Formats: sequence, structure tokens, C-alpha cells
Amino acid sequence: MLIDGKAIAARLKETLRGELEAIGGVAGIATVLVGEDVPAAVYQRRIDRGAREIGMASRPEQLPADATLGQVIGKVAELDADPDISGILVLRPLPAHLPESRIFAALPPLKDVEALHPLNAGLLSLGMPRFIPSTPAAAFHMLDRHTEAAGRDLESAFDGANLVLVGRSNNVGKPAAILGLQRNATVVSCHHHTSQAGHLEEFTRGADILIVAVGVPGLITGDMVGEGAIVIDIGINAVDDGAGGVRLVGDVDTASVEPVAEAVSPVPGGVGPITDVWVLRNAVAAAKLSLAPAGQLVLR
Amino acid sequence: MLIDGKAIAARLKETLRGELEAIGGVAGIATVLVGEDVPAAVYQRRIDRGAREIGMASRPEQLPADATLGQVIGKVAELDADPDISGILVLRPLPAHLPESRIFAALPPLKDVEALHPLNAGLLSLGMPRFIPSTPAAAFHMLDRHTEAAGRDLESAFDGANLVLVGRSNNVGKPAAILGLQRNATVVSCHHHTSQAGHLEEFTRGADILIVAVGVPGLITGDMVGEGAIVIDIGINAVDDGAGGVRLVGDVDTASVEPVAEAVSPVPGGVGPITDVWVLRNAVAAAKLSLAPAGQLVLR
Repeated sequence: MLIDGKAIAARLKETLRGELEAIGGVAGIATVLVGEDVPAAVYQRRIDRGAREIGMASRPEQLPADATLGQVIGKVAELDADPDISGILVLRPLPAHLPESRIFAALPPLKDVEALHPLNAGLLSLGMPRFIPSTPAAAFHMLDRHTEAAGRDLESAFDGANLVLVGRSNNVGKPAAILGLQRNATVVSCHHHTSQAGHLEEFTRGADILIVAVGVPGLITGDMVGEGAIVIDIGINAVDDGAGGVRLVGDVDTASVEPVAEAVSPVPGGVGPITDVWVLRNAVAAAKLSLAPAGQLVLR
Repeated sequence: MLIDGKAIAARLKETLRGELEAIGGVAGIATVLVGEDVPAAVYQRRIDRGAREIGMASRPEQLPADATLGQVIGKVAELDADPDISGILVLRPLPAHLPESRIFAALPPLKDVEALHPLNAGLLSLGMPRFIPSTPAAAFHMLDRHTEAAGRDLESAFDGANLVLVGRSNNVGKPAAILGLQRNATVVSCHHHTSQAGHLEEFTRGADILIVAVGVPGLITGDMVGEGAIVIDIGINAVDDGAGGVRLVGDVDTASVEPVAEAVSPVPGGVGPITDVWVLRNAVAAAKLSLAPAGQLVLR
């Protein structure tokens, strides 16, 4: 079966509306696009539209491709000072002359909804997350909803399960490993060198849960997946559609994997729509954090 | 063969003497023991002795078992203000009433040689470590020295190797996973639930490199290890010696593993002595960090 990411995202959006209402609607998301990367620009518009739909403040900012480090950090500082903005997202990829790590370290930690600041990455890795980056969060949200729908107990469903990750990036593979360990799964982190050494298939075939995030169209085929596995596809790749245009495909060859797997998430319509909502949800979580200290000051 | 941790530690200590000399000997380690945990007290004395041996300042501090959170954090602040101290180590276990995470978050990040502060844990997980916690650092130092001694190229020796970790703690298992990924190994993180699910042996048998840190005496036996594996034992357990005393054993049953493995690290005399030196080495690294800004101020 295919997991319907759009339906899960729609339900999550309803939850989010309630959460936003509960804090009086005071949350806002700012996105910073530097340069003209097309997928990043599309993502920025999607977040902006999603925020407006649920009545959340949105500030999509654009800087030219030749923006200096100071200009980007200055923009972040300006957004930090905006009381309507609870969450700030600097979109990737950044132009090559901008050092990611300096920009991420300049993010205000309480508005750093993608946990890119080392402090938030550390809290996550120590098992005390303030924010969970939206893509791995969305993957696990999908996994949880599928697990519930299959009638399994969320409290123990992942205990000792073989969770195989393909990809070791800071924004997906590594946080997903942490989230998997927190759910008591055995976690196998595979990547390019696993494949080079000829071991990728051994590991993917043994997976109870397979999460793939490498950006290689159709890398995972049916013969690489064990009977009954749950396969979550995080890749989004634009490929030639044979008619002069492009179409989006994932890292998983859904057609050959679906007959073997218990469930597989499609691309498009899988993890993507859930991620879009999760970004906004993290902005609401950030607003709650910024409200908390004020609440604690009420002495009576 | 057994890997001689003492010999590796002795060579590392010589390197360290040179590093200390290069910065004019200006480095110091402070250790904070809260309460009367015997292994922690033994560890504190070992660090103190090691520091004095190489002419490094050492400040072993003791607080009573009923010390308040404020007293512990106050002591840390006092050590932060001491210009002779470049590295601070709060020894574990802490008494149950003290919240570890609050104490670690109060460590001055530039003196936090065990990378316990979330900021340093984050820098490590993002692949930009300021400090590498001494126990996993020592395990990989041992692995590197063994790899060199076996005539393999350190640059590529771990590419696509199956690195199996048993244990998922914040101070060993998780940083070891990060260090393994940085060396291009496929990393498998096993733990209690892997064992409960009956999968531990499958994974340990497939390991090219097996690192064990769980605190279960003799958990890993020869039948659980593949031919030619390298086995690093991080466990240190005090067990009844059958004569009214105790003796130290690791998590690996060395007698049955040695004939199967390419190499195995013994306990005692394995990772432990290297760890002791690494703590001091991190204090020298911290001193370099604290010297760096002053050096940058010399304008000419």
C-alpha cells in the first residue's frame, strides 16, 4: 500500500489550527531565501501559503545571490527583533560563498525551528530536543500514523526493530538516527560508502523500517527491500519526463517496492506535505517557548 | 592479539608533553566529585596524578553528597574564573537529586572538555567538534593506532566498514556513532532492545569493528564475533574475584573472543589508560582555544 501523506498532513494541519488558537494565534514564520535556487523558492512560497491558510504571520524574505555574510546575519537579527515572528528558517542551499555554519550559529536559538544552531542540534542529540527538524519529524510522524493505523501499539512498536537509514546528512540522516534510538529501534546508518563497499543491499533487505534520504532517483528497488518492510522516501528529485518537462520522483522506485513492502510513502504526496505543516508547527512550538518565561513572571 | 592500551597511552602521553610545552605549560584540569562514588573518586585521583606527572595544573574538588544544585553550579563558576584551569570535568554519577542536564548546561563551553554542554554536543554531532569526549576519542585513537600497526591506510581503512556499537549512551554510544560516520563507516547502533528482540548476535557477528560500552560483564563472547573483527571493550565492571575481593572485567569475554578476532582490547589495560590521557589532552586543547583570541589581538 501507499501511505497517503496528504491525508496525514491535512489531519496534522487541523491539530495545528487548534494549537495556534490555543496560544491566541500569536506565532509567525520567517523564511530567508538567498539567491534564486528554484526548489528553495518553491518551498518558500509553499510555507508562506501554508502559514496564511491557517492565519499565521508569514514573512518571506529574499536576498540577492551575492549577499554578504553580514547582510544575511543582519537580516536574521532583524527577524529576531520582530515580535510577530516566532520561527526563522534560512533556506538551503546557500550560495557557495556563504559559510552555513556561521549563519546557523547566528540564528536565535529560541526561533531556530529547524534546529540548525549547534545548541539545538546538541539538545536533540542529548535526547532533550527543543525543536525536531521538520523533515525527519515528518518521516516519524508518518511512521507513527501508519503504525497506529495498522493496529500496533506505538509505545512498543519500534522496540528492537531494525531501522535502516540511507543517508547521513546533518538535517535528515543524523537526527533520524537519534529519533530512532529514542524509539528503541536498532539503528543502521548507511550511505555512499556502504554502497561502494557492496553492503547496501544486505542492510536494506534486513530493514523492518527503511528511511531513504540521499537524492538519488529510484535508488531503492523492490529486490533491495525485505517482505513486509515499511519504506519512507524522503528524496525529491526532478527528472526529465521524456516530454521536455520535469517530474518529481523519490529515492525509492515505488512501483517495484510497493508489492514487496507492507507500506511505502510516495513522492510526491508522501513526506513532503507533512514536512510543510511541521515547519509551521515548530513555529507554534517556538511561540510557546517565547511565551513561557512571561507566564512564569505572573506572581500571585 | 590483545591491543596494548598502556603502550598506546604512554606514546600519547609523550605527544601530550610536547603539546603542553608548545603552549608554555599553561593548561590545567579541574575535576568536581559530588558525593562518594568509589569509581568516580578513583578516576579523580588518576586524573590528578596524571596531570601532575606531566606538569599540568590540577584542581580536584570535592562536594558533599547533599550539595545543592546551586553549590555545584557555583563551584563550576569558581573554576571558570580560575585562569590556571583550562578544562573542567564534573564526574559522574551525580547524586540522584542533582539534574545532570542543568549542571552540564552551566559548564563554560570553552572549558567543557567532555563536550557535555549541549552546544559542544551539537558541534560534535554537526561534524565540527570543539572537544571529543575522552572515552569514544580513546576508543578511536586505539583503533587508529591498531590500524596503522596492521599496515592499513588510515585515510580509507574505515570506508564502508561495518562498525557495530553496543550501547547508545550520550557519553559513549552516540558520539562514537558520529565519529564512525565521519570515518565513512556504516554504523549500527545496538542496545538493550536489540538484544531483547533477539538480534544482537546477527549484528555483532557481521561487525568488522565492534565497540562495546554497556556495563554488562562478559556480554560479548567468541561465538558472537566474526572471524577477523577488531573488538574494542569500553566496559569496566567490578566483579567478585571469588576470594572476597573484586577484580575489573570488561563487557567482552576476552578469553573466548581473542582466538576469533583480529584484535581485542583488554580490560584493564585497554581503552582506560588512553582515556585518562585524553582528558588531559582535551584540557590542553581547551587552553589553546582560550589562547587563540588573545593571539589574534596581536596586530602587526
